[in-house]
Amino acid sequence: MIIDNIQHVMFPIAAQVEKLEKAKVDKAILFCTTPHPERARSYKELKEEMSILFKVLSGDGLQVVSLDRMKQNNQKVVQAIQKYPQKFYGFGSVPLGLSLNDTIDWIEEQIVRNGLKGLGEFTPGSDEQVGQLETIFQALAKFPSLPVWVHTFNPVSLKGIQTLMNLTKKYPHISVIFGHMGGYYWMNVIDFVKETPNAFIDLSGTFSTLAVRMAITEIPQKCLFGSDAPYGEPFMSKELVEYLAPTDTIRDMVLGGNIQKLLELSN
Amino acid sequence: MIIDNIQHVMFPIAAQVEKLEKAKVDKAILFCTTPHPERARSYKELKEEMSILFKVLSGDGLQVVSLDRMKQNNQKVVQAIQKYPQKFYGFGSVPLGLSLNDTIDWIEEQIVRNGLKGLGEFTPGSDEQVGQLETIFQALAKFPSLPVWVHTFNPVSLKGIQTLMNLTKKYPHISVIFGHMGGYYWMNVIDFVKETPNAFIDLSGTFSTLAVRMAITEIPQKCLFGSDAPYGEPFMSKELVEYLAPTDTIRDMVLGGNIQKLLELSN
Repeated sequence: MIIDNIQHVMFPIAAQVEKLEKAKVDKAILFCTTPHPERARSYKELKEEMSILFKVLSGDGLQVVSLDRMKQNNQKVVQAIQKYPQKFYGFGSVPLGLSLNDTIDWIEEQIVRNGLKGLGEFTPGSDEQVGQLETIFQALAKFPSLPVWVHTFNPVSLKGIQTLMNLTKKYPHISVIFGHMGGYYWMNVIDFVKETPNAFIDLSGTFSTLAVRMAITEIPQKCLFGSDAPYGEPFMSKELVEYLAPTDTIRDMVLGGNIQKLLELSN
Repeated sequence: MIIDNIQHVMFPIAAQVEKLEKAKVDKAILFCTTPHPERARSYKELKEEMSILFKVLSGDGLQVVSLDRMKQNNQKVVQAIQKYPQKFYGFGSVPLGLSLNDTIDWIEEQIVRNGLKGLGEFTPGSDEQVGQLETIFQALAKFPSLPVWVHTFNPVSLKGIQTLMNLTKKYPHISVIFGHMGGYYWMNVIDFVKETPNAFIDLSGTFSTLAVRMAITEIPQKCLFGSDAPYGEPFMSKELVEYLAPTDTIRDMVLGGNIQKLLELSN
């Protein structure tokens, strides 16, 4: 089974399903989104949508995305799964900066009751925000296994990545997915994931195929195929893994087996 | 004709030619290199090669690569072209920080006499080093058309990219290739290239297919297909353009027509 470990909700959902089918990807894990670049009909409209994304990434996330809006966004993930249960799983957004109790309540209400499989994408806009993830890790002690998916590409710095590494070590029972391979710091992330059982690597958004080749070769059991659609193309991301995987067994693990095991998904 | 606008010299050269043929890429423009990740036989060896690259990118270029070494590296490009004239063109390295006269002499000796087609890859490790490119632009007034290829991905900052934009405007008769699409600042670079006749975009090393789609759609006559091998895969980079190009005409321009025109290459 081929599972894209990260796609954002795209409108219309039927077109997203069609894209999956064309790419011959069986299922995708859906994540919330505020910008919708896939809806842009012109470059001007795309720039408007992208300016929202850049605001989120610049650390203005909470100002831009209110808690109500975050709940609505989670609801869109849930609705897409209800409409296409054979095509999608979902992760849900959890705000940073809430108290421990409020975070626990949020996870209970927004993630567990909605049947979502994990938390994220967290897109920390600053090193301080990476540190705020500790409340999330503390809260997760109250719940059965829920992985945490964190964007570790620009604007997250090496210091931010190291903070996340420390949290991952400190909470060994929580699986952490290092999104986009750590970006520029992919070698640091490969080294870390190699020695840390609860750390995983998402292969989306990488700028060097050499990085993907190394990750797949060094830690085949820890790599998760992903497209980050609409920012990436599921078809091309899948082709890349097929092109680089040294064996068919590794290809199948990276394209779906690993995430299936991590999320305890049935076939 | 399909021309990869940036590959680094890989050893053995015969394997590089074979890779081109397998990817069905007719020709590549060769650039110097100090690290040789393609030679690494293990992850440990790869890390050693990559540490050289990171030193170059951190602005230690002149310390790491002496002028003699730079000349030897240029010579390797020339030797590869002599061995496979049907497969390769070349760009040559020019050091930053020399006087205007020394820069002119270097270009005459290292680029023109060697029959190379342009200058680069410049990999400025700091905003200050981007500013030093002005000497190169001044020196080029003495020569017939020679494009300048500049790495504009991390660690080049937005400020560094803006400095390069100012130089590009100030010297309108020099073609400037913005390597790796400006990285994180791809929208700024697309906007700039759109309005600046002597600016071009290299599509290698990009982390979002959305960026490539936008560039190809907005400025099809300014986009240059590239793999940045060994950091990228020519086959996958070519597939991406074929997948995203809205028409066959645009696909052919991006895959070779544009660079052929820019470098006045014969068929």
